[in-house]
Amino acid sequence: MENNLEIDFIRKLAGVFPRHPLQVNGLMEADAEIIRCNGEYLVLKTDGIHEEITLGLYTDPFLIGWMTVIAPLSDMAAVGAVPWGLLLSLQATKHRQECWETALQKGISAACSFYGVYVLGGDTSFADGFSISATAIGHIKTGRPLMRSGLAPDDHVYTTSLAGAGNAFAYARFFDASVDLRYQPFARLKESKTIRGFASACMDSSDGLLPALAVLCEINHIGCRLEVPVIDLLIDEALTVQRHADLPEWILLAGPHGDYELVFTVSEALNAPFLKACVIDEWAPVYLGRITAEPYLSFDTDGLRVQCQPATIPNLYAGAEGNLSNYLERLYAQHTSWCSQK
Amino acid sequence: MENNLEIDFIRKLAGVFPRHPLQVNGLMEADAEIIRCNGEYLVLKTDGIHEEITLGLYTDPFLIGWMTVIAPLSDMAAVGAVPWGLLLSLQATKHRQECWETALQKGISAACSFYGVYVLGGDTSFADGFSISATAIGHIKTGRPLMRSGLAPDDHVYTTSLAGAGNAFAYARFFDASVDLRYQPFARLKESKTIRGFASACMDSSDGLLPALAVLCEINHIGCRLEVPVIDLLIDEALTVQRHADLPEWILLAGPHGDYELVFTVSEALNAPFLKACVIDEWAPVYLGRITAEPYLSFDTDGLRVQCQPATIPNLYAGAEGNLSNYLERLYAQHTSWCSQK
Repeated sequence: MENNLEIDFIRKLAGVFPRHPLQVNGLMEADAEIIRCNGEYLVLKTDGIHEEITLGLYTDPFLIGWMTVIAPLSDMAAVGAVPWGLLLSLQATKHRQECWETALQKGISAACSFYGVYVLGGDTSFADGFSISATAIGHIKTGRPLMRSGLAPDDHVYTTSLAGAGNAFAYARFFDASVDLRYQPFARLKESKTIRGFASACMDSSDGLLPALAVLCEINHIGCRLEVPVIDLLIDEALTVQRHADLPEWILLAGPHGDYELVFTVSEALNAPFLKACVIDEWAPVYLGRITAEPYLSFDTDGLRVQCQPATIPNLYAGAEGNLSNYLERLYAQHTSWCSQK
Repeated sequence: MENNLEIDFIRKLAGVFPRHPLQVNGLMEADAEIIRCNGEYLVLKTDGIHEEITLGLYTDPFLIGWMTVIAPLSDMAAVGAVPWGLLLSLQATKHRQECWETALQKGISAACSFYGVYVLGGDTSFADGFSISATAIGHIKTGRPLMRSGLAPDDHVYTTSLAGAGNAFAYARFFDASVDLRYQPFARLKESKTIRGFASACMDSSDGLLPALAVLCEINHIGCRLEVPVIDLLIDEALTVQRHADLPEWILLAGPHGDYELVFTVSEALNAPFLKACVIDEWAPVYLGRITAEPYLSFDTDGLRVQCQPATIPNLYAGAEGNLSNYLERLYAQHTSWCSQK
């Protein structure tokens, strides 16, 4: 069985620390940290967009501000929490242009006011580069939190929207300047309210759709069979990039730059009432497939039926160690390998 | 009136964001963020030790781990909160030596277990440099929080220990390799339990003692008169460095590398009961002087009686913009200026 390198790394780094006795979730068992407190749940999450900034994926200060807020709010949505606000941690050069700073503030303010959350505080220090992260805090007043664990074979697998917008944006940015895509994802806090009443497990796709499914598979020791062909899961921007660059379809769902959608599972018994609740709440989930007892990820892409170990796809990125050209080579090599097994 | 450059900077950066309606403290009005929640107070604080790492002040990974925990816990102590735990935000190169990582974990674990707090979660990303920050969470179950505001003229000014250890360590590290000092400050959570019953205002001296007093003066539009000569406020390590390098005494209290002690004020009416409570709780505060209506900071140092605007001393560092040799020059120039006014 191939190990998920990212999960191994986190276990090695954070597994040495004991858990708080009131903490509900184990290490990596949820998108956010959930603590029992006065008869409800307190929810916390620190998230940064360091790599996106360092790699030059995010350069627009408004987008950086927006994403700083969206990233931890998306984790709040994934556990079914209602967020109150955020603490920011900022490192910046002292003499940054004022208009840059203003646009950053506007991005933060726009996202906060869209979701009704507040900047509660922060910490600033001076550095050569620029870096920002945020800690969101929220709560779950009634009911149980959503976690990555808890799903079972035959559960239906859904996501909140067609996928691939994040990877399409990254591909255009790094490899094809002729395509200009807009990218401004949303945290699925509204949809989370419906999902939390029905889902057996949930996480966000901030690291991509297939990597999210890989984590769900690994944590629950199960597999996932996508019953909808990959091409039918791609959002317009992803289709545009896929066609323009003639990319293998699955690559748009494989990359680590995600969509901040929710990926979740619903048991057979709750599936009909869940779909009814979605109609009432006026949104439509995207059906992906089913959970399987066999620990493999399988999907139809580019006329192939692929079956692989869940870790295979995220490890292509982890193994490239931040070298994006090498990563693209590794993706193509994997595709060629699958084609040859046909 | 000379503006405090650091305060101006924070107001410009964070003053644009509206406050949460349940947040008790205004911008910079407390060492941590305090939110009314279910009849108690929830307390949060993000703090990083980026500059200490970037400047090469902290190189020992155990110390880095220890300080990562101590810095936000000290802020919890300053508002009178009981901390539960922390979320870490880590940026590191992928191929750091394993023994370095282990020592970092040991420093974090040692501080957590000393204070009975837990690592609740975190976020890791890869970067060229190394950077770490933490968000602490805690609560105040009964009573009111301690803030930086609320003091009045004639209040007694105290700190939890003799001062200057942080600046002595920084001076030895940057300017005098012949002195080898140990530095491992503590968060004054125990003392905070006594202080919160009596203090009119409180903050920690993580940015140095005189800069802390400057902030208290600025926020409350008052002044402070140190009645104990500076030489009698210096802790042993600070005295050693001061004598070895023949430094002006006040410089050991002026630098921005602090002691993580609490600096607090007690009204005349509560002073006797406060001192009695300290005896019962088995610790002794260090008396500094009194709050004054005149908005000046005054103290006796090197045979001089200095009276200056509160912002003068912290601005010497802010104006040096991270250039430590220039900062030392500015400190000496200030000293010469005061000597010439004698």
